[in-house]
Amino acid sequence: MNAEVTPTSVPAPNPAAYEAARQLSDGQAKPLGALGDLESLAAWVASCQGVCPPRQVEDVRVVVFAGDHGIAADGVSAYPAEITPIMVYGIAAGHAGVSALAEANRVAVAVYDIGVAVDFPDLPAEISRFKVRQSSGAIHVTDALTHEEVRRALAAGDTIAAEQIAAGAQLLIAGDLGIGNTTIAAALIAATLGVPAEAVTGRGTGIDDATLIHKTALIDAALARAGERVSDPVERLAALGAADFAAAVGFMTGAARRGIPVLLDGVNAVAEALVAEDYAPGTKSWMRAGHRSTEPGQALALERLGLRPLVDLHLRLGEGTGAIMAVPIVRTAVAALNGIAQLADLS
Amino acid sequence: MNAEVTPTSVPAPNPAAYEAARQLSDGQAKPLGALGDLESLAAWVASCQGVCPPRQVEDVRVVVFAGDHGIAADGVSAYPAEITPIMVYGIAAGHAGVSALAEANRVAVAVYDIGVAVDFPDLPAEISRFKVRQSSGAIHVTDALTHEEVRRALAAGDTIAAEQIAAGAQLLIAGDLGIGNTTIAAALIAATLGVPAEAVTGRGTGIDDATLIHKTALIDAALARAGERVSDPVERLAALGAADFAAAVGFMTGAARRGIPVLLDGVNAVAEALVAEDYAPGTKSWMRAGHRSTEPGQALALERLGLRPLVDLHLRLGEGTGAIMAVPIVRTAVAALNGIAQLADLS
Repeated sequence: MNAEVTPTSVPAPNPAAYEAARQLSDGQAKPLGALGDLESLAAWVASCQGVCPPRQVEDVRVVVFAGDHGIAADGVSAYPAEITPIMVYGIAAGHAGVSALAEANRVAVAVYDIGVAVDFPDLPAEISRFKVRQSSGAIHVTDALTHEEVRRALAAGDTIAAEQIAAGAQLLIAGDLGIGNTTIAAALIAATLGVPAEAVTGRGTGIDDATLIHKTALIDAALARAGERVSDPVERLAALGAADFAAAVGFMTGAARRGIPVLLDGVNAVAEALVAEDYAPGTKSWMRAGHRSTEPGQALALERLGLRPLVDLHLRLGEGTGAIMAVPIVRTAVAALNGIAQLADLS
Repeated sequence: MNAEVTPTSVPAPNPAAYEAARQLSDGQAKPLGALGDLESLAAWVASCQGVCPPRQVEDVRVVVFAGDHGIAADGVSAYPAEITPIMVYGIAAGHAGVSALAEANRVAVAVYDIGVAVDFPDLPAEISRFKVRQSSGAIHVTDALTHEEVRRALAAGDTIAAEQIAAGAQLLIAGDLGIGNTTIAAALIAATLGVPAEAVTGRGTGIDDATLIHKTALIDAALARAGERVSDPVERLAALGAADFAAAVGFMTGAARRGIPVLLDGVNAVAEALVAEDYAPGTKSWMRAGHRSTEPGQALALERLGLRPLVDLHLRLGEGTGAIMAVPIVRTAVAALNGIAQLADLS
């Protein structure tokens, strides 16, 4: 076990830099507050960097955590689990959804097989370097992971964050990939918030009414099976999570602990963020929400985190694509804080 | 009078290219419809270009139409009319809000003095080339413009659109600049939709309750003074508009007539779009809404146009800044349609 992943609280971003950014913004040649969300966003970036005005966020990276989920065999998705490896190959080859969206927005993409049901001997070994196991347990009948697997996944995510940051990342995004993952997200959100499955379960990639009822029932069964132990975030990941989700939690807390901000994607990332905040309190202050999900659980989870998504384009692809759409907004916020003249300098 | 500005209906974008884009999108290696608004947006670009897949929208230009408004002397704004020329200088010098946001998003900026209350002998002559008059009439007591001034302003906007397109523009944005302009926008929206001032009048750059009541009363007085003649769009611009608004109307219809799409900014641009659609029916099919305004009139006007804004970042700066925030979304939509593999090619 990596000592680095021992849960500890995370110090908040620098409040003095935040305040300096707000004052800089207030003094600009424009009506007070006229740049709306861009002003608070730029101040947040300044506080994360601990410097005002903030440096431009040139180096943005999305890490896609791929994994299968045992519950998918029980018919909770519109797609079979065989799609998961196909999408891993798609990202590795650079022609997946996330590839196109990332390239258009100058965002780098990496993919790691954390828990896909099959292995990838024909792909670069790097992709499988952090693999925890093949798939994860079907949470309505058994635990997703052992405690040791949770620890390994958390450590993997932490190491990946450390490596990306050492290589220059200024802003990180956790992307998800794996059939059945919105079921895991719904279970984690329901367990964290203490609400029934019905409140958080959605249609994922597009299931019909009967499948939605079935999916909801399986999540309720998982919650009942797990019981009270899920008040602990590591137990929650073991009972109801998955290897890819645990790795993303480690990635988020690893980024926050090293002072690098995180932009959240859809329901999976927000479920991971909820767990990350329980695991390492203070992590959420290093996060902003990128994209509004069509999944009902995301809104409830974001409310708990106190975050509001920057865009709402009805994406439901995952892979970090929603967060990528918010990257130009973050960069524009920083550019505005650096580029607009002070009113005092014009007089 | 320029023959080009005679009102005529505008042909719709190419439906075959739209349909081809939707099919291309449906065949991609992702769940059906999973890119949400990006898919319809890319199809709209394809239809405007008449080709599928569409070319990337590299060359985007915002033209800021600057003008004063006689009604501003009667206290409808939090800022005095002296701010208008200061902001013209700010854009000319490249350190205004729109300058920073445009640069961050690879958008070119031009500013034209269409009706500012003062002249700019110390700025390049190009900026004043299309000037119609100094300020516009105070609409609660007199017409904003003569019919001849409306025609000259419409022709100016049409010529500016033609020049920008000849220089390579693939997507155009009309920006606004001028104290009192949300009062003009509210009057034009109220007159177009047949609703009272109260339904459309907002706080602009941040006026207090008493000023809001005063602003609303002045708009109602303007609507009562103008009477029934405003059912005609040229009469509406003459009675309740302003030179900068009429030029922007000519700019939008000029873009649409030449097959170049327009991204709408806030309440001023949307008021202009409403008039443009009456002036040259079909113009609206060449438009998409960029940014949700905090002004109440914009939502009503967008509903009439059948448009939904791509972003909502609580900007209230004007100058085209809201539309600029939507430019990366348009470009990403085009990139996604071009960059994601077809599922059939992967099997």
